[in-house]
Amino acid sequence: MSEQQMTNEAAKTLDGWYALHDFRTMDWASWKLLSSDERQSIIHEFTGLLEKWGVAQKEGKGSQTLYSIVGQKADFMLMILRPTMEELNQIELEFNKSRLAEFTIPAYSYVSVVELSNYLASGDGDPYENPHVRARLYPELPESKYVCFYPMDKRRSGNDNWYMLSMEERRNLMRSHGLIGRSYAGKVKQIITGSVGFDDYEWGVTLFSDDVLQFKKLVYEMRFDEVSARYGEFGSFFVGNHLSLDTLPQFLYV
Amino acid sequence: MSEQQMTNEAAKTLDGWYALHDFRTMDWASWKLLSSDERQSIIHEFTGLLEKWGVAQKEGKGSQTLYSIVGQKADFMLMILRPTMEELNQIELEFNKSRLAEFTIPAYSYVSVVELSNYLASGDGDPYENPHVRARLYPELPESKYVCFYPMDKRRSGNDNWYMLSMEERRNLMRSHGLIGRSYAGKVKQIITGSVGFDDYEWGVTLFSDDVLQFKKLVYEMRFDEVSARYGEFGSFFVGNHLSLDTLPQFLYV
Amino acid sequence: MSEQQMTNEAAKTLDGWYALHDFRTMDWASWKLLSSDERQSIIHEFTGLLEKWGVAQKEGKGSQTLYSIVGQKADFMLMILRPTMEELNQIELEFNKSRLAEFTIPAYSYVSVVELSNYLASGDGDPYENPHVRARLYPELPESKYVCFYPMDKRRSGNDNWYMLSMEERRNLMRSHGLIGRSYAGKVKQIITGSVGFDDYEWGVTLFSDDVLQFKKLVYEMRFDEVSARYGEFGSFFVGNHLSLDTLPQFLYV
Amino acid sequence: MSEQQMTNEAAKTLDGWYALHDFRTMDWASWKLLSSDERQSIIHEFTGLLEKWGVAQKEGKGSQTLYSIVGQKADFMLMILRPTMEELNQIELEFNKSRLAEFTIPAYSYVSVVELSNYLASGDGDPYENPHVRARLYPELPESKYVCFYPMDKRRSGNDNWYMLSMEERRNLMRSHGLIGRSYAGKVKQIITGSVGFDDYEWGVTLFSDDVLQFKKLVYEMRFDEVSARYGEFGSFFVGNHLSLDTLPQFLYV
Amino acid sequence: MSEQQMTNEAAKTLDGWYALHDFRTMDWASWKLLSSDERQSIIHEFTGLLEKWGVAQKEGKGSQTLYSIVGQKADFMLMILRPTMEELNQIELEFNKSRLAEFTIPAYSYVSVVELSNYLASGDGDPYENPHVRARLYPELPESKYVCFYPMDKRRSGNDNWYMLSMEERRNLMRSHGLIGRSYAGKVKQIITGSVGFDDYEWGVTLFSDDVLQFKKLVYEMRFDEVSARYGEFGSFFVGNHLSLDTLPQFLYV
Repeated sequence: MSEQQMTNEAAKTLDGWYALHDFRTMDWASWKLLSSDERQSIIHEFTGLLEKWGVAQKEGKGSQTLYSIVGQKADFMLMILRPTMEELNQIELEFNKSRLAEFTIPAYSYVSVVELSNYLASGDGDPYENPHVRARLYPELPESKYVCFYPMDKRRSGNDNWYMLSMEERRNLMRSHGLIGRSYAGKVKQIITGSVGFDDYEWGVTLFSDDVLQFKKLVYEMRFDEVSARYGEFGSFFVGNHLSLDTLPQFLYV
Repeated sequence: MSEQQMTNEAAKTLDGWYALHDFRTMDWASWKLLSSDERQSIIHEFTGLLEKWGVAQKEGKGSQTLYSIVGQKADFMLMILRPTMEELNQIELEFNKSRLAEFTIPAYSYVSVVELSNYLASGDGDPYENPHVRARLYPELPESKYVCFYPMDKRRSGNDNWYMLSMEERRNLMRSHGLIGRSYAGKVKQIITGSVGFDDYEWGVTLFSDDVLQFKKLVYEMRFDEVSARYGEFGSFFVGNHLSLDTLPQFLYV
Repeated sequence: MSEQQMTNEAAKTLDGWYALHDFRTMDWASWKLLSSDERQSIIHEFTGLLEKWGVAQKEGKGSQTLYSIVGQKADFMLMILRPTMEELNQIELEFNKSRLAEFTIPAYSYVSVVELSNYLASGDGDPYENPHVRARLYPELPESKYVCFYPMDKRRSGNDNWYMLSMEERRNLMRSHGLIGRSYAGKVKQIITGSVGFDDYEWGVTLFSDDVLQFKKLVYEMRFDEVSARYGEFGSFFVGNHLSLDTLPQFLYV
Repeated sequence: MSEQQMTNEAAKTLDGWYALHDFRTMDWASWKLLSSDERQSIIHEFTGLLEKWGVAQKEGKGSQTLYSIVGQKADFMLMILRPTMEELNQIELEFNKSRLAEFTIPAYSYVSVVELSNYLASGDGDPYENPHVRARLYPELPESKYVCFYPMDKRRSGNDNWYMLSMEERRNLMRSHGLIGRSYAGKVKQIITGSVGFDDYEWGVTLFSDDVLQFKKLVYEMRFDEVSARYGEFGSFFVGNHLSLDTLPQFLYV
Repeated sequence: MSEQQMTNEAAKTLDGWYALHDFRTMDWASWKLLSSDERQSIIHEFTGLLEKWGVAQKEGKGSQTLYSIVGQKADFMLMILRPTMEELNQIELEFNKSRLAEFTIPAYSYVSVVELSNYLASGDGDPYENPHVRARLYPELPESKYVCFYPMDKRRSGNDNWYMLSMEERRNLMRSHGLIGRSYAGKVKQIITGSVGFDDYEWGVTLFSDDVLQFKKLVYEMRFDEVSARYGEFGSFFVGNHLSLDTLPQFLYV
């Protein structure tokens, strides 16, 4: 296989559902001006939307989850997975046109697609038929207690230029990188979404765990790994606590 | 031909229609405060503008298209091509003075001109008389399902300084870069617009496709090419779904 | 012990209470529009929250403190330590839903966890049982006259890449760095909080002193130390004066 | 002449009128709320100011011009030249206190002074008495159809440090740079204003032409010249169409 | 004296009064809505504050000055020197709570302390008892016609790392740097304030002159000096005209 073919191989990824991470800040002052009845009715409309979107999840046609975000970057994050970009846009519009949206301020968003790199590809046969691969490309989002999201790039700077490495070098680097990730199996669930051509960074990383400290341990340990140490460029980090249909009213109660 | 002449050659481009990419965010909360009749009348005024601008397209004197944008960066993008900077400015003003504009917030814009580089120039005769060249300089914008836009620079940093390369080196690098682009022929239509002296980056790239995943594949594959890997600096990426006169009312329906 | 094991060792930290630094700007113009009685009632509600949060401190289940901030970056900072991320989020929500919050504008926030690095670890036995370690992981925040806060990263740039150094090199560098810090013992109390995976920088540094000039002396002296000189990247610096329950009403008096 | 003297020579410039570039965005929604009569009266007040400021131009005591700007960066730019910083400030205040200013939002501004570098100095005698030099230091701004403005720095980065070059090296580099500029004589009029100590970049470049494409050709060709390729750092680029007293009412008509 | 001791020496500075530079933008549209009487009363309240603060200056316990700023960065700058951080904070609060503040928008601020470096220290005896040193640490701010302010860092980047130089190298570099400054004696008065640990840059530079062009000449000449050329990183530059109690009413007159 020629160098050029290997490069092209490296550029191949397996792509699953499209992803929208939608971060919002509450306008609490305006929210408090409403009567309790109005707030109830707005919460009811919003939980109705969540339930409607939940039907897709039950039918294996998408998934979504809601987390409150700690600190001033946002008050909550809605993460949505869907088979098409149109559906993401449609759900975004449904939220934007909802009454709750009138009391939120856009804080950040990320557009990407669930992605498996082919660095560690084992594979015989059509990977899109492999049940293990399918479970990762079309995942049901967990209801873990905590979420962590950050976007990232591979660096292209002077001698630290990921995209000028050979496929062989990148594969070796990714292998040791993957070993760290795997040592957190059972503690942290990781969903990588690719955003080249879709958003400002090249990837989004969404981590789920029932132990929030595992996010710090995982990201910090990886930072000593050459892939991150020399080639990782990171955007903003968001951390949050799970919001269920049960805890949402308490979150919005004023 | 002396080195200096070659440098000057490299600086020559073929330039076509001027381009304005105008990204807007809807103020949904204010939009919802209107009566249904008022909204209808505003949509009617806006579609009237689109039809008026469409006359230029029918007469081969420009082109324009409208896409909804996914994520919080914007709600929609209006892309306009016209023979003069005054016409771009005029259309921008017409939109700004329209009633719909009162319910939008400027999100981003890009001023450029359709450009063909002369790296791959074949040419005998006046290229501006060549029908193939004319079709690319004065394109009718496609009504593809998806659009992707991003601005970019060629890097001038330490040893990675595009503008210090010889014409020969640049030509060779662009040749292999062009090969990747051409392998997406039929899948992705690409319009390059030059913005040196007009806007903050040196070029704008607008991609059209009926398969949104092709944007990611194309941009990611190119990133391993030396032109992008060592010399590409990228601004924000925007991705969106086509809005036709038929789907626009649904988009604005609340 | 292998190099890999040493790297992993380096990635180990002792982690204590979660920390939220919440910076707010007063909307003085709106605040002045209230009647004196309304302002009194709002101050009363806020001091009530401070007292309620103070119970956790008395029970050794957290700590908090309030400082006014000099300059336009913010008007005051509320710093909160708690055993869980949920409690931080809960206190943040309680403040956001309070009446005083209606007269504040979010200015900056930082999410982290009190951290002791293991570079200088001495230790036999479970450090979490060591009273000296516990006092640093679960500190009662001092009521010093002045506070200084800034976030920071270790640099990963060209030849100045902290994360590509060996454990041995990092340990030696941190040792001399620590000596400077220790020379300020009794003059400056320093709380390091780790934010890898939680916020945009890797660490937050909170300094307390009764002599504000010591902040400048300490940070400036450290800047000549190789750890800062070659490897430190700093975010914004905030400096402020202590606000007690006694001085708060004067601060808010208009 | 010693190296030190040559350095000091290099730091000498000829300085003419002070310059303020004032970019404004129209608040069209509020503007439209006015009655037609009110708008007429406001336009009348503004054209009155332009005429008043125009007296200085007739008397050779300054110059000013107005351009609409394409894209969302601004709606128009007022460029003013005056003999003193106080007069710039005074005109800025007069505009800020005018009724039209109530319907504009500040977008960008630049403070500088018309400057001739001494790299290409020929000169015998007091250059400030040389009519050719005076015409360039105290220019009457042209009423060209198009304007282009951008601020720029000379780079000080690693091996690409303009200010560490010898006077001889800088002079040679500037000579070839100037040749490109001169090849656009008759097509592009260029006014260089120095802003070291006055604004965030070191120079402002204002280009005037009746052919907007010449801006792109000039700036792009210069980018291959070593002065720009290795040493140029550029801020935002603004491009616009001339607004005369005749076309201004149409621009503001809603 | 060991290298370590020399480093510590270098970190020693003489520190005088604390400094707050407070930049504000006028909300002219709201200001104009007031009746002439209300504006007079607000101006009267503000000049009353200025006079009250002026008492400290008469008693040698601080100093302050007011300048209008040219361009959109701000409309005016209030610069305050006081013996303690609490007094700075107190004056800032007094302004924030004044009626004029309701018609201003915060634009930028800087927190620092008047500083003399010890690179050029001559000294026998306690420098804080030296009248010449005291005059520089506790200066009465001049009423010069023009002011220039900018914050700056010493660079720590690759081979251009100020903080990795030896004390000897830094002392030599600063000596030639100081010579340039001294050649402007009588033309430009310079106040250096240190902000390590207090604000985002390491120093603030405030220049006063009766000839605004001297700011440009001084800063430009210094830029060729190695200290600035290789090691200077500059923030925003602000330039302005003096506002006295006499000219202030004219400045605020609408």
